[in-house]
Amino acid sequence: MSQDKLRIIPLGGVGEIGKNMTLIEYGEHILVIDAGLMFPENDMFGVDIIIPDMTYLLEHRDRLRALIVTHGHEDHTGALPYLLSKLPDIPIYATRLTQGLIEVKLREHKIREAQLHTISHNDKLDLHPFQVEFFHVSHSIPDGVGLAVRTPAGLIVHSGDFKFDHSPVDGQRTDFAKLADLGREGVLLLLSDSTNAETPGYTPSEQEIVTTFEQAFIQAKGRVIVATFASNISRVQQVLDTAARYGRYVAVAGRSMINNVRMAQELGYLRVPDGMLLSVEDARYLPPEKIALVCTGSQGEPTSALVRMASRDARTIRLQPGDTVIISATPIPGNEELVNRTLNNLFRLGAAVYYDELFDVHVSGHASQEEQKLLLNLIHPKLFVPIHGEYRHLVLHAKMAEQTGVAPQNIFILECGDVLELNGDTPRVIGRVAEERVFVDGLGVGDIGEVVLEDRRILSQNGFVVLVAVIDSKTRLLLGTPQVISRGLVYNRESETLLRIMEDEVAKLVGEGGSVAAINARLREAMARLVYDTVGRRPMILSVVMEV
Amino acid sequence: MSQDKLRIIPLGGVGEIGKNMTLIEYGEHILVIDAGLMFPENDMFGVDIIIPDMTYLLEHRDRLRALIVTHGHEDHTGALPYLLSKLPDIPIYATRLTQGLIEVKLREHKIREAQLHTISHNDKLDLHPFQVEFFHVSHSIPDGVGLAVRTPAGLIVHSGDFKFDHSPVDGQRTDFAKLADLGREGVLLLLSDSTNAETPGYTPSEQEIVTTFEQAFIQAKGRVIVATFASNISRVQQVLDTAARYGRYVAVAGRSMINNVRMAQELGYLRVPDGMLLSVEDARYLPPEKIALVCTGSQGEPTSALVRMASRDARTIRLQPGDTVIISATPIPGNEELVNRTLNNLFRLGAAVYYDELFDVHVSGHASQEEQKLLLNLIHPKLFVPIHGEYRHLVLHAKMAEQTGVAPQNIFILECGDVLELNGDTPRVIGRVAEERVFVDGLGVGDIGEVVLEDRRILSQNGFVVLVAVIDSKTRLLLGTPQVISRGLVYNRESETLLRIMEDEVAKLVGEGGSVAAINARLREAMARLVYDTVGRRPMILSVVMEV
Repeated sequence: MSQDKLRIIPLGGVGEIGKNMTLIEYGEHILVIDAGLMFPENDMFGVDIIIPDMTYLLEHRDRLRALIVTHGHEDHTGALPYLLSKLPDIPIYATRLTQGLIEVKLREHKIREAQLHTISHNDKLDLHPFQVEFFHVSHSIPDGVGLAVRTPAGLIVHSGDFKFDHSPVDGQRTDFAKLADLGREGVLLLLSDSTNAETPGYTPSEQEIVTTFEQAFIQAKGRVIVATFASNISRVQQVLDTAARYGRYVAVAGRSMINNVRMAQELGYLRVPDGMLLSVEDARYLPPEKIALVCTGSQGEPTSALVRMASRDARTIRLQPGDTVIISATPIPGNEELVNRTLNNLFRLGAAVYYDELFDVHVSGHASQEEQKLLLNLIHPKLFVPIHGEYRHLVLHAKMAEQTGVAPQNIFILECGDVLELNGDTPRVIGRVAEERVFVDGLGVGDIGEVVLEDRRILSQNGFVVLVAVIDSKTRLLLGTPQVISRGLVYNRESETLLRIMEDEVAKLVGEGGSVAAINARLREAMARLVYDTVGRRPMILSVVMEV
Repeated sequence: MSQDKLRIIPLGGVGEIGKNMTLIEYGEHILVIDAGLMFPENDMFGVDIIIPDMTYLLEHRDRLRALIVTHGHEDHTGALPYLLSKLPDIPIYATRLTQGLIEVKLREHKIREAQLHTISHNDKLDLHPFQVEFFHVSHSIPDGVGLAVRTPAGLIVHSGDFKFDHSPVDGQRTDFAKLADLGREGVLLLLSDSTNAETPGYTPSEQEIVTTFEQAFIQAKGRVIVATFASNISRVQQVLDTAARYGRYVAVAGRSMINNVRMAQELGYLRVPDGMLLSVEDARYLPPEKIALVCTGSQGEPTSALVRMASRDARTIRLQPGDTVIISATPIPGNEELVNRTLNNLFRLGAAVYYDELFDVHVSGHASQEEQKLLLNLIHPKLFVPIHGEYRHLVLHAKMAEQTGVAPQNIFILECGDVLELNGDTPRVIGRVAEERVFVDGLGVGDIGEVVLEDRRILSQNGFVVLVAVIDSKTRLLLGTPQVISRGLVYNRESETLLRIMEDEVAKLVGEGGSVAAINARLREAMARLVYDTVGRRPMILSVVMEV
């Protein structure tokens, strides 16, 4: 029997564990699953995106066998440009649509070289010591897969993002037969999607929302505008199908959505009747009742097509009373305020609005509790590691595994970066090799951490004050008038008196002498007290005393 | 017939209209209803609270007849300290519990003088030209009222915050009989609570959550900790009742909750068995299975009792595996991320957690659609103005009014500050006398607006850079070495090279001469470009060139 060790390492996710990347390591060989990004929470100031901590991959680049991408959503593909900038040679395996979406993304990042390999559901890959098979899973995007990974230590099944949709828009069901075969063969470990572990029952089929779309199209007097995620190709198909039935042309707004739709159409993942797709510009010249529009903005993103329309800011489309808007998504936690503002603005414009509080406009792409249990029972693994969820979701999913017969001591709730070693009869966490996350801000990857964020938090609350004074290095006397400048503290017109008082105070305190460091400390303390006593705020205070 | 005009002016609320204050004006007389606050949204940086724009009240202080407070929640009482600091003599009418909560609040703000008058549901007030009657309404706090205001122009009914709870915890039902009487008498105008206009059916009774409380107390092995709003006196009563049944003592944690519970007990609004209430300190010495704890923190507020317990930060209570936590509230929009983090930390500590995704731990205090329609049909007003809701809620409530027979031209959806004049047959909005809101930050009321907030937003995203250079006023030559300081831009250790490059560049650019203004402009532009090219960020850049 081999002495090599089998290890599982979940990476990435803001609060979610193993959402963006998971490593399967056997001896000196690493298989990487997914390379996705997350968007920052409201108090992660100035962070553009968040990617997994890939230090371990870079330190062991000689061990990397391949990256397999399960489907084309951002939270599974979005870190690829960052991974490829460090590891351009890693072979990447993905299905056709997933590969198409990856190519769109790499073009946007001006990355020209990547070792992309197309796979289909029936392929078997020999990535020694891993033998990888795929099984189709239904999700809110076509062409998603889960993985069966044979290792010398046993068979591992990774669910990918999945649901059991019995009537998916793309006609591709989750592959029950292959899952049953794998279960019969004997699975050492199941890694499974925990996103909806709080949701009882079954997730409805994508088809369920067709009823709402029909109702909206039948009752619409003006244009019908559908906002959804740019990658939600299935939802775009539903708009196309409904528009075709009710004699409307379809235009697409929003850069990322235009790119994705074009690619999906080219690859044959969107069925578009000839002449049905129009540009937004052309759509302006047709009567409103002949037009449907698909666009971004379902999360109230300030620069999205829908929000610009709702704030009368759009170049080409002006919302008008009688238009119908369908927000075909639910707000991601943290986005509720932006979504609510957008909804209110749409109502102010007199639009008929279909949204999730009132209508069935969206269904989740993830398995609910009964589906999670069904997968557990099809696979009946010896070991279980819940992934793709926040800590509470993993705990709830673990309880379901226990209910379906997995022994409690064989269920492992991991944190991001934990290394679970599966050897012999006592699998255990042997250490931690990664942080929970890496912040990306502008061109910088990982160069801002808690210190910078805490500074930004203080600045966001009360702004800052800078005191500048010049002293003669010989006489120690003040030269010229000190300057006090503030931003984000008080409205400037109101603050002038305060600033003048501060300048007088600075002049006085500099006159008390001492080293530059001593003067700076004295000024900071006195100014902090003065500001707090006057306006009750605690801005950041910098003192710059220059000797010349 | 009187030539005086009747006007309705809703004020305040972040996005919500007339939530925090509503004015009824007849001729030269103003009746003020409520004086509440709102909490800021995530992008209102550094704002502590938000109060209504009371300029109109201050400009017409001679017209003020009285302030009537409908119930004791913050969004109806929280602006009182600010109102009283400007208008200390305004007579305030409120029921006993509401008055108790107001007194707690005024003590916290060190306001000693206020003209507080206690009313009961059966009182009639003559506040010429207004004759005011009250009717009891059930809500998530005892002792709430709605108003019937007789004016020479007709009878106005204001619902307050209400639901039709058929089995309220305090035994006080909404007064159907008086509502029916008013309807029979003939109501000119109904102003009614729109909060839950998106929710079909009926809001469940407060009693519904008893089942969940029972289940939690029966299964709990360790302590039972219930987090809810500090003002939710009815929920505290439910904890006391359940604890009594299962032989547990009750401790209260969180300053505001301790104050409210003490006051409600003194006034007889909480029924507490003798010796049942303990201090948190004393609770430490009893076995966990004898303890229930009520505390603040249901919204994940970082300084609340629950969050400190969940982050192992509390002085006196340490959560341990086996403890049970009930989050008896739903997240207010914008708080989801904080609530989710708290939940995950509670799960990490091994607590059994009852929360709204999984259990019936909370019911709304506001009427759902069928109750809103019931009130409309009991009152059958001639005119209808939906209040207490975001714009979309008002539109949905207006549609219900139309369904119940109010003529569409007699329904008015107002924005904050709109003046609706009701005279003769053509009521109409004649103008606007207030902004949507006033920000309070520290000691400052209304001194920060869009400019300061935009500065704080920029600072929160990318921090700032300050360049300081001293030049000789005669020779125009640089004196000493320029200094470049940044905060919130990049992690300092990484940024040193960048700062040195910038200092060299500043020295070079100062040497090119020109006026101080010209040098400052040149420096700002060059530094912005340098920073953007290096790290892809756009910090705020200040240039301070001093002539000495």
